Amino acid sequence: MVDWNMTELKHILKAEQFTDIKELDRLFGLADELRAADEKGQVPQSLAGKIVATLFFEPSTRTRLSFEAAALKLGAQVISTENAREALSANKGETLQDTIKIVNGYADIIVLRHYEKGGAEIAAEVSEIPVINAGDGAGEHPTQALGDVYTLQKELGRVAGLKIALVGDLLYGRTVHSLLPILGLYKDVTVYLVSPPQLRFPKEYTKTRIVLKEFDNVEEILPEVDVLYVTRIQKERFASEQEYQNLKGSYVINGENLKKLKKEAIVMHPLPRVDEISSEIDSDPRAAYFRQAQNGLYLRMALLSEILK
Amino acid sequence: MVDWNMTELKHILKAEQFTDIKELDRLFGLADELRAADEKGQVPQSLAGKIVATLFFEPSTRTRLSFEAAALKLGAQVISTENAREALSANKGETLQDTIKIVNGYADIIVLRHYEKGGAEIAAEVSEIPVINAGDGAGEHPTQALGDVYTLQKELGRVAGLKIALVGDLLYGRTVHSLLPILGLYKDVTVYLVSPPQLRFPKEYTKTRIVLKEFDNVEEILPEVDVLYVTRIQKERFASEQEYQNLKGSYVINGENLKKLKKEAIVMHPLPRVDEISSEIDSDPRAAYFRQAQNGLYLRMALLSEILK
Amino acid sequence: MVDWNMTELKHILKAEQFTDIKELDRLFGLADELRAADEKGQVPQSLAGKIVATLFFEPSTRTRLSFEAAALKLGAQVISTENAREALSANKGETLQDTIKIVNGYADIIVLRHYEKGGAEIAAEVSEIPVINAGDGAGEHPTQALGDVYTLQKELGRVAGLKIALVGDLLYGRTVHSLLPILGLYKDVTVYLVSPPQLRFPKEYTKTRIVLKEFDNVEEILPEVDVLYVTRIQKERFASEQEYQNLKGSYVINGENLKKLKKEAIVMHPLPRVDEISSEIDSDPRAAYFRQAQNGLYLRMALLSEILK
Repeated sequence: MVDWNMTELKHILKAEQFTDIKELDRLFGLADELRAADEKGQVPQSLAGKIVATLFFEPSTRTRLSFEAAALKLGAQVISTENAREALSANKGETLQDTIKIVNGYADIIVLRHYEKGGAEIAAEVSEIPVINAGDGAGEHPTQALGDVYTLQKELGRVAGLKIALVGDLLYGRTVHSLLPILGLYKDVTVYLVSPPQLRFPKEYTKTRIVLKEFDNVEEILPEVDVLYVTRIQKERFASEQEYQNLKGSYVINGENLKKLKKEAIVMHPLPRVDEISSEIDSDPRAAYFRQAQNGLYLRMALLSEILK
Repeated sequence: MVDWNMTELKHILKAEQFTDIKELDRLFGLADELRAADEKGQVPQSLAGKIVATLFFEPSTRTRLSFEAAALKLGAQVISTENAREALSANKGETLQDTIKIVNGYADIIVLRHYEKGGAEIAAEVSEIPVINAGDGAGEHPTQALGDVYTLQKELGRVAGLKIALVGDLLYGRTVHSLLPILGLYKDVTVYLVSPPQLRFPKEYTKTRIVLKEFDNVEEILPEVDVLYVTRIQKERFASEQEYQNLKGSYVINGENLKKLKKEAIVMHPLPRVDEISSEIDSDPRAAYFRQAQNGLYLRMALLSEILK
Repeated sequence: MVDWNMTELKHILKAEQFTDIKELDRLFGLADELRAADEKGQVPQSLAGKIVATLFFEPSTRTRLSFEAAALKLGAQVISTENAREALSANKGETLQDTIKIVNGYADIIVLRHYEKGGAEIAAEVSEIPVINAGDGAGEHPTQALGDVYTLQKELGRVAGLKIALVGDLLYGRTVHSLLPILGLYKDVTVYLVSPPQLRFPKEYTKTRIVLKEFDNVEEILPEVDVLYVTRIQKERFASEQEYQNLKGSYVINGENLKKLKKEAIVMHPLPRVDEISSEIDSDPRAAYFRQAQNGLYLRMALLSEILK
């Protein structure tokens, strides 16, 4: 069973809440059903009469639209603030807790994006309606991770036994932090951590039964892996432009790299992508990142309908 | 009967329009019915097919979400602009009148927040659909005042005879300006005006049959009042930081103050709150401000369904 | 028949796609039907279950609200970003193509406002769902042009044979660029191009069977024309404030001008208007610009229902 937090409310705050593969399989199955219904234009309106509040304290158009489309397809209505941090600055210091308590009176569930790590937990502590963490600073982004594992299952038919390379900025990348605990539920997963030395995976996330291997360079692991999960490296993380330029090339996935990748492997990316994956490979069937984005939608539909049922 | 402005259209522009307690009782009764229906998930979809335009020329996320949730719960749809002032600056000077006339072609009712006093009246003059004033500069905020009086009725069972302290910035506080005319409809209301000398209640609002009493300090009136209605004091209103710091303490409501307050009294606040009410009292049953926010939602639902029926 | 672009998808990218008057008449007839249904509160919910994404990379509240109201009236739901350029800047360079591909997974149709000419065509190239160009930089704004021609038909009963003055900034005015190709489908249309020498109509748009006549001044053509289509002249287009002030007067339409205009002529404007039309003429029955805005709504409803049926 999922540990739906400490309370009776079904908050989704972090990936670690999900501790049971059967529960994940059930969620993924529900996502599949909702996808099939959507393709026939027959999504059950199970959230009719419900209001979903998307409170984004920093803009994330992609995540917000994904949740809003998920809610609307299930028949819910949406109230939203695209950039609460700026809009609420007029308040000169209202606490997150107060905002959450007020919105409790208007909505049935809150989807929260906050700029500080731990924001979602603070919200959940005072909320009388469920809170979904849609990203909290450098913390977690659990629905992204769930959608990613759903993508593995859907694209490759299994998660157990996979060899997965996480490539890029592993230090600040919220996405990969949330991914590890869920991968850890499956047997025999090997994760190749490929990053510049400055951007290594944080030690705090390495308590896992997954076999972790560190690499500096992506080239050598290409022939081995089933999944190439690429994240963006930000120029600002480096001491000098020169240092960044020297390293950058090692982490750009292009047509040449793809030749070395297995035929049945896939390339994933949480998006947005800048130039760490060349658009020349978009048409390769192994490029799974846009399918991954759509899987995220159906996974969110499954979560919303589970939580509000 | 309500004076629905000069025209046949049911604009809500200022608190002074409401001149009949029976009409208020009817509204509050309707709000109660809608609340009961909402709790059962059975709100009548009386606004199905209607479009509510929320035009906010300055951000006020709380008020906007309250109106939008109210509209959606009744089956209406919403078109919205979160910060029209900025978005419309691209227009380099379109008049408010033109914006209103254009939106007349798209929506069935306009909820308007404007940054200038009188904005709502200007809008109503040219509008062929109802306009609701959701705050116009330092002017009025009549739906807030209606929700507040509904809260008094709901929490204390009556309005007549109440002793109500208005505490804080009474000079610039739009909320308290709109509250007085409605309180004035009820018998034997006493209002204690508690503010620093710089922020006294404006003379223009004192033409009322309410007994008004001025105080500098909140402590002395605590044991007498039924309602402590707190508003925020802004640092900018003072000549020096020192002056502000000296005064500030007198207007912070904390656990100590609460000990002196009657057991059956309530503490209200239009929100957002910063530090003028200590969060330590949030769990006290007399802290009514979050219930007050939710009452505002149901009052707005009642108004929308009355106006558009 | 309409050339719905090169693909099977019914993109609306530019006015030149519309090549058949019969098709336009059918669209205008559908717009009339939808208007009649709307006035009775009985719009067919033909878009129920559909999601319309309004992606505005620069704010245009008027156009966005028009499309959103059109979608909602037909029963669709809307996901929206009011200012994607700013919101997506956090992405540090995601391409428009990527944004479009991701939204493909969430919505059934995209309404795109982009700040660069050609933005809509770039989007359509990668999109698997229809794209409607809601303005692309100095490029086109085809749904505005369709609404304008619908207005001519509705107000004057015909388009063929009309004498139409386009007044103001003809060089940068996207609206008039999109209008010409559609007017060119009708017989015996004469267009009077009235602009300062600096802001002449671009040569590239003059390949048309319409008789085009250039004028510097609006006064002389007033008694001749059936339609005065006014656009805004921006101060920034002039070398000096003095030059602007000298010219400005010739292009302001006021009560004096209207005396010279035919009784059955109309004044149009794509809005927003600043001071190029004096508000003193708003109450003149020939002032058609607010009716024109509402016609745009019904025309957009007709387009959405055609494309998504």
